[in-house]
Amino acid sequence: MKLIIGNKNYSSWSLRGWLAAKQSGLHFEEIIVPMFGEEWQQKKQSEDGGMMPSHGKVPILWDGDTVVWDSLAIMEYLSDKVGRDRFWPKDESARGMARAIVAEMHSSFASLRRELPMNVRRRFELQSVNDETKQDVVRILSLWAEARSRHGSGGPFLFGTYGATDIFYAPIVSRFITYGIGVPGFAQAYMEAIWEHEWTQEWISASENEEWVIEQYETVGE
Amino acid sequence: MKLIIGNKNYSSWSLRGWLAAKQSGLHFEEIIVPMFGEEWQQKKQSEDGGMMPSHGKVPILWDGDTVVWDSLAIMEYLSDKVGRDRFWPKDESARGMARAIVAEMHSSFASLRRELPMNVRRRFELQSVNDETKQDVVRILSLWAEARSRHGSGGPFLFGTYGATDIFYAPIVSRFITYGIGVPGFAQAYMEAIWEHEWTQEWISASENEEWVIEQYETVGE
Repeated sequence: MKLIIGNKNYSSWSLRGWLAAKQSGLHFEEIIVPMFGEEWQQKKQSEDGGMMPSHGKVPILWDGDTVVWDSLAIMEYLSDKVGRDRFWPKDESARGMARAIVAEMHSSFASLRRELPMNVRRRFELQSVNDETKQDVVRILSLWAEARSRHGSGGPFLFGTYGATDIFYAPIVSRFITYGIGVPGFAQAYMEAIWEHEWTQEWISASENEEWVIEQYETVGE
Repeated sequence: MKLIIGNKNYSSWSLRGWLAAKQSGLHFEEIIVPMFGEEWQQKKQSEDGGMMPSHGKVPILWDGDTVVWDSLAIMEYLSDKVGRDRFWPKDESARGMARAIVAEMHSSFASLRRELPMNVRRRFELQSVNDETKQDVVRILSLWAEARSRHGSGGPFLFGTYGATDIFYAPIVSRFITYGIGVPGFAQAYMEAIWEHEWTQEWISASENEEWVIEQYETVGE
């Protein structure tokens, strides 16, 4: 399998797809296409039969002739291959909530995503964020609180053991750290568990070693 | 099971959740909460332990004490209950593409969704649509073309038999009809298959019999 991703420092959706590939336990080769550069434009434009049949979005998984784009679809495709229990809670009720929390991440929090882009290696001191972003933060913390309190007793992750919801919220943890978002104690503990996870650490190291700089993501709050 | 939905004439995400519930074959009771009215505001505000633990969004599925919000999560939850084959193609490669096409609908096409809101019973003559909406239309038609040509030989739907992708694009079919979007022949045939489907017809009849009018959705193109 080949996983096509963008810059590790900036591409939050790539991180989700990559963590899903890691969680599958299957072997995969990663191909980084630096976002917005020349190579990106070329690959994006040669869509038919090309590498990126996804309108120039990443991540994309190639499994032989099969192509799957979108991080959620990639995770479900891999879950189909290796078994649902590796990604989703076994308990039906917990799984229902986990599916809702992942789907909400997939379609929501536009303000937070726009105002606070992922930038793994940087730290910014923000004077303030806009009201919609504040609402997004509050909503995310309430989802985390509900998952942890109802279903988190088996470990430090949202539903105890590491799975789909953690894969989907890992880039949010990165943003909260980058922009110094204040969170209550239970959320700090969860964020530490995510941050110290070996795959997050592997991704952070790679981010720090990337040489590409995308200016538009480096001037937040200035 | 109880499915909480918004007005049938306007709520495209409710239609997706409702079609998924139909496709599951399970018995469910539907509860309509008229969007943006007094009842809606009350239910939205009494979030804790209330009917709508989803920030006032529909659809929501209650299955005993289990609550699942978001149409995609509801579909996956039901697929877990009744078996994946009822919703997704059996063939792995086709299923990968179907998952990608559904996920793209779930997170994309913001311009089309904003400019051309679902309004099942109305017909509008638009003078023009903006460029981003045009791009959304072109992208949707290319996804339909690819699914139909590669995997559609077993029937009139995107992957032959009725399933997840059709459930997710049914509200798009309704929009294309409402706003008279011109489409090529293969897409017309697909739209007819969706429109004539007994569940679409049941939904249309209910839409026409609803008395609620939401002004903001009735002035498109004026």
